[in-house]
Amino acid sequence: MEIERKFLLSGVPPTMRFARREPIRQGYLALDGDTEVRIRISPKGAVLTIKAGRGGVRVEEEIALHARQAEALWELTDGRRVQKTRRRVRLAGPASGRDLVAEIDEYAGALDGLVVAEVEFPDEEAARGFQPPRWFGRELTDDWRYANRSLASDGMPEG
Amino acid sequence: MEIERKFLLSGVPPTMRFARREPIRQGYLALDGDTEVRIRISPKGAVLTIKAGRGGVRVEEEIALHARQAEALWELTDGRRVQKTRRRVRLAGPASGRDLVAEIDEYAGALDGLVVAEVEFPDEEAARGFQPPRWFGRELTDDWRYANRSLASDGMPEG
Repeated sequence: MEIERKFLLSGVPPTMRFARREPIRQGYLALDGDTEVRIRISPKGAVLTIKAGRGGVRVEEEIALHARQAEALWELTDGRRVQKTRRRVRLAGPASGRDLVAEIDEYAGALDGLVVAEVEFPDEEAARGFQPPRWFGRELTDDWRYANRSLASDGMPEG
Repeated sequence: MEIERKFLLSGVPPTMRFARREPIRQGYLALDGDTEVRIRISPKGAVLTIKAGRGGVRVEEEIALHARQAEALWELTDGRRVQKTRRRVRLAGPASGRDLVAEIDEYAGALDGLVVAEVEFPDEEAARGFQPPRWFGRELTDDWRYANRSLASDGMPEG
């Protein structure tokens, strides 16, 4: 499973304005308890992802889709979509460890103005020890309203 | 879209006891409104199917799965599974038309004893004009309790 922490940003840092951008469309086909079935379409290709956790069983499976199939399924995500532009930036790691990569997601459409940073860690210890850079804002990791499935269904969180 | 009619049988006809059998495991990963995401595993392979209809948009997409991925996803269908053995039989069509094929599904496990026949038609007219053979029982086409997703979730219908 991925170990990630997520933070609110006030915007895309000026130094990253010209970083390589990956436009991502992400929509939810089915949300059923703690199971989600989503489709993500980007220039890298289209992927169907099934995420679930029930009791001790946690699964995340990704299945590559053909473009035609992806577009047919995309039609079913109406009303539960997010669009965002992803940029990546390397963060200096701890003295002893490897550098980390932050994914900076700038949302568009109904979520225009929302920018978040996500950092993935190799293990729990690295996640706990992480010192966010000053330009990171409030942590959102456990704020369910900022989960992509919530953003897609419920829109911009208040406050 | 498939045009099908479904009928209850009192059992597998004796003449079909030795017909070729296809053991099928079918489980539901997500049920969300009129969207269903299911996995089917048989000797023919494993397939993920996403079925949905919202307003004028109706979609059914099938995606082939690798065996490993299929088994990982199968774990998520606990409590929403059916197991059945499928046999096929050719039915004489109308004088002017082609023969039809009936799929005879004999359920196992909690649904032991349930046997249904499904006939697929090339068009609405053929479906309407179909004369079920005498060994077909009550029609189940519009009985939601006999839909596979209901059988998987709710078990054997009463009465």
